[in-house]
Amino acid sequence: MPGAGKTSIGRRLALRLGLPFLDADAEIEAAAGLPITDIFARYGEAHFRDGERRVIARLLAGPPLVLATGGGAFADARTRAAIRASGAVSVWLHCRMATLLKRVAGREHRPMFLNADPAEVLERLMVARHPLYAEADIVIACSDESPEVTTRRVQQAVEGWQPPIRLSVPLGERGYDILIGEGLLARAGALLAPVLPTRRVVVVTDDVVGPLHLPTLRAGLAETGTAILAEITVPSGEASKDIGVLHRVLEQMLAAGADRRTAVLALGGGVVGDLAGFAAAVALRGLPFVQLPTTLLAQVDSSVGGKTGVNLSLGKNLVGAFHQPRLVLADSGTLGTLPVRELRAGYAEVAKHGLLSGERFWRWCEAHGPALVGGDREALVTAVLESCRLKSSVVAGDEREESAEGGRALLNLGHTFGHALEAECGYGGMLLHGEAVGVGLGLAASLSARLGHCSQELPGRVIAHLQACGMPARIGDLPRRFSATALVGRMRKDKKAREGALRFVLLRGPGEAFTAGDVPLETVERLLRDEGCEA
Amino acid sequence: MPGAGKTSIGRRLALRLGLPFLDADAEIEAAAGLPITDIFARYGEAHFRDGERRVIARLLAGPPLVLATGGGAFADARTRAAIRASGAVSVWLHCRMATLLKRVAGREHRPMFLNADPAEVLERLMVARHPLYAEADIVIACSDESPEVTTRRVQQAVEGWQPPIRLSVPLGERGYDILIGEGLLARAGALLAPVLPTRRVVVVTDDVVGPLHLPTLRAGLAETGTAILAEITVPSGEASKDIGVLHRVLEQMLAAGADRRTAVLALGGGVVGDLAGFAAAVALRGLPFVQLPTTLLAQVDSSVGGKTGVNLSLGKNLVGAFHQPRLVLADSGTLGTLPVRELRAGYAEVAKHGLLSGERFWRWCEAHGPALVGGDREALVTAVLESCRLKSSVVAGDEREESAEGGRALLNLGHTFGHALEAECGYGGMLLHGEAVGVGLGLAASLSARLGHCSQELPGRVIAHLQACGMPARIGDLPRRFSATALVGRMRKDKKAREGALRFVLLRGPGEAFTAGDVPLETVERLLRDEGCEA
Repeated sequence: MPGAGKTSIGRRLALRLGLPFLDADAEIEAAAGLPITDIFARYGEAHFRDGERRVIARLLAGPPLVLATGGGAFADARTRAAIRASGAVSVWLHCRMATLLKRVAGREHRPMFLNADPAEVLERLMVARHPLYAEADIVIACSDESPEVTTRRVQQAVEGWQPPIRLSVPLGERGYDILIGEGLLARAGALLAPVLPTRRVVVVTDDVVGPLHLPTLRAGLAETGTAILAEITVPSGEASKDIGVLHRVLEQMLAAGADRRTAVLALGGGVVGDLAGFAAAVALRGLPFVQLPTTLLAQVDSSVGGKTGVNLSLGKNLVGAFHQPRLVLADSGTLGTLPVRELRAGYAEVAKHGLLSGERFWRWCEAHGPALVGGDREALVTAVLESCRLKSSVVAGDEREESAEGGRALLNLGHTFGHALEAECGYGGMLLHGEAVGVGLGLAASLSARLGHCSQELPGRVIAHLQACGMPARIGDLPRRFSATALVGRMRKDKKAREGALRFVLLRGPGEAFTAGDVPLETVERLLRDEGCEA
Repeated sequence: MPGAGKTSIGRRLALRLGLPFLDADAEIEAAAGLPITDIFARYGEAHFRDGERRVIARLLAGPPLVLATGGGAFADARTRAAIRASGAVSVWLHCRMATLLKRVAGREHRPMFLNADPAEVLERLMVARHPLYAEADIVIACSDESPEVTTRRVQQAVEGWQPPIRLSVPLGERGYDILIGEGLLARAGALLAPVLPTRRVVVVTDDVVGPLHLPTLRAGLAETGTAILAEITVPSGEASKDIGVLHRVLEQMLAAGADRRTAVLALGGGVVGDLAGFAAAVALRGLPFVQLPTTLLAQVDSSVGGKTGVNLSLGKNLVGAFHQPRLVLADSGTLGTLPVRELRAGYAEVAKHGLLSGERFWRWCEAHGPALVGGDREALVTAVLESCRLKSSVVAGDEREESAEGGRALLNLGHTFGHALEAECGYGGMLLHGEAVGVGLGLAASLSARLGHCSQELPGRVIAHLQACGMPARIGDLPRRFSATALVGRMRKDKKAREGALRFVLLRGPGEAFTAGDVPLETVERLLRDEGCEA
């Protein structure tokens, strides 16, 4: 904003950082051989902005420097995109009206303030530009402190700044990024703006996550003037993955005025992501969608890959759509509020990705899993990153799960057993999905060993690791008994088994999974009985 | 089948048609320099079938001839595809067991019958092959009549045979064909087999269409052994485009054992097509889908283009998916059972396509519309063909209605007015969708003329034509009064208007439609009042 001090702070910052300082406006005038007011007058604003964008891109492509830009530059969407693309760190000096008014006193001769009330001019600019300036990487709230003090604060922020980890899911025109890091919800508006068609969203969350994280999300969206047309809260838990709930969510979205350019934001775990994603897929035949996963399970698994859907009384996920998000914001801070049982359950999918990925990541799991389920933040970030990396590469090769062999089906490692255990227990919370998957991983390794596909040591290694993380890893660790016949019956009804034959994902070792359609059911039943199931 | 008489009938037919006759088996033996039994014995069946396919394709690529093929040739899916692709007319000589048994007597030395009960051998072959032979273009039921009689019947069938009209919707990997003609439902199994992954389907229909056309469809599917896992009947009418009905349809589909390779067949009008298509889009995240439209409206409009969906209490088609069918069978015979009011209503979309297409088709409408709504079969077929041609070219250019200008939005000619009239009347049958569109076409032309975009004669021409077809064409033709303010209010709430500004499709003349976002609402209100609406 005029009077924010970009030249004065910029010069001081450059001095402290030992970098050259340039003012974009001065460079533009030099390049054009004309004062900016004349360029505006002769060629119009559009022409000026194009030139401005080119000059800024050229300067940012050169050696490091501190660059002050005119107030209109960062308000231009394409110039913002060029600045982002350059890899520069952008800083907004955010001043209040009183501060700015004092500083622009004496500039009444500037064209901007000629014959006008400076307060009115500034107010109009603030309303139009603050939501855009808020997309800067760093926002420094400036008071009437001395320029030196502000400069020191800017320097600290710039030196301490770390961009969120960014991972691309390469799906062509449906490709998107996953951002991983602390504080992403608080910056949601700035992070979403480049990928959404408008600054209008509806938020779907549940009654546990909403109270914890909606206030942060609201503030993050407000920064960039992103309007929340509706906040739709569903009951926490699997029962919300239901067509009746979907119907209510759709009615609320549309009654709130959602149009084809309104984005649906899913704030929560896998249930909210699957439900909101499916609502986004079918509302007006498809709205842009964003995943804001707040559980480990959702961050490492369900928020990536575009599977959305709800359950029928006949089974889980029988109705749905492939609908890729435009962005996934995995805010590591939200994992701090997770109950330890949920953290552990989510970890089962991390361990699965470790087994699918190879010795490197699997060994990392064995080394860091116990710290992770204890809440170690660095381990959590690594687990989310490596899981998303594994999953996105699998999804990129088989987006709609159509590969005859391997492909997305490999992500079901441990799930044939897991789904059967889960279905036997009902979905009332006796056995979480991740817990069932954990036990399923042990069983899949045991089955692989019995069939001679992997070493006899692997099952013990898998089970010992999960137990070291405080998770149930064998059927005997679960608080009820199971019948081998009933479990095999469940497996035969599984969605994946609908093609006819029962398919298992088996292991030759970490990183060497494969799908097998020829596993004798007697072998499976015998394994289950040996693990303590009744006949 | 062995003993069906392919050589004896084939030779006689060739003589009558003045064409050469060849026996594929003899040609294969000549090409290989070995008897077929030796090729089988030495190289196996797969090798033999590959050679057989090459020989048959080579012969069919040459000058016209009558070709008899071995019984296994047409049972091979890739050979059937090669025969279809060649443009040949395929004939199945369909004999009953008693006939065949008599004729194979004396062939006990053939390898096929060696040391076996001929009846058992034939029975096994029939079960395996009849469903595949049924894919032939022509099926001749042969009794014990003389070869001359059978040959004459084959000749008549071949000479009288007309393939259904086939139109391609060019959507890349989602592309599909529209077949138009008489008797397509009766041959549904044969026509569907090449495009479906399995011979398992579920059929969705309504309680009016089902009794009329399900028996024909059942028989057509039975020919090729296509199993109907479920026949799901919903109440006729717009009220079935509802999430609750969708839920029941999905539960029934999946309870019947539908898997990811089971196709959903929509037998009915627009409501059934939209509902069943949406169910197919979301069941197991997407099943193959086939449109069997039985109304003129569905044949000329809703069955083509992949829009599927249901209504919310807030408005029509607010929930849905783009899900392209694998095939559309527009059986002209079904239009004979349509009430005249529905035929006329469907004709409104034909007239719309005439206006969108250009002077040629629009003049055709003016010349043939009255005969068409009187049931003229040839006019109906032409109208369906030309409508599908226009619609598929528009859809191919803008599959998901994302074009900023023109594109699929042009198909809404007359619909901004039409939807408002329809909404004001409720959806209880006082005003059919097509009737509303008809009046909307007149209003769109009038608005275009008032805004100076088209000649002052065009509105009168449109209105006179619709009235000549016995349709309401002006607001004054409708059985109730309307308020201009209320209609404009409805238009502002229309799904298409959700982006903000109200958009109209206007005409410069037939074939020259365009979208306009800058129509003054006063002009619209004045037009409505001049047409007799209250203020």
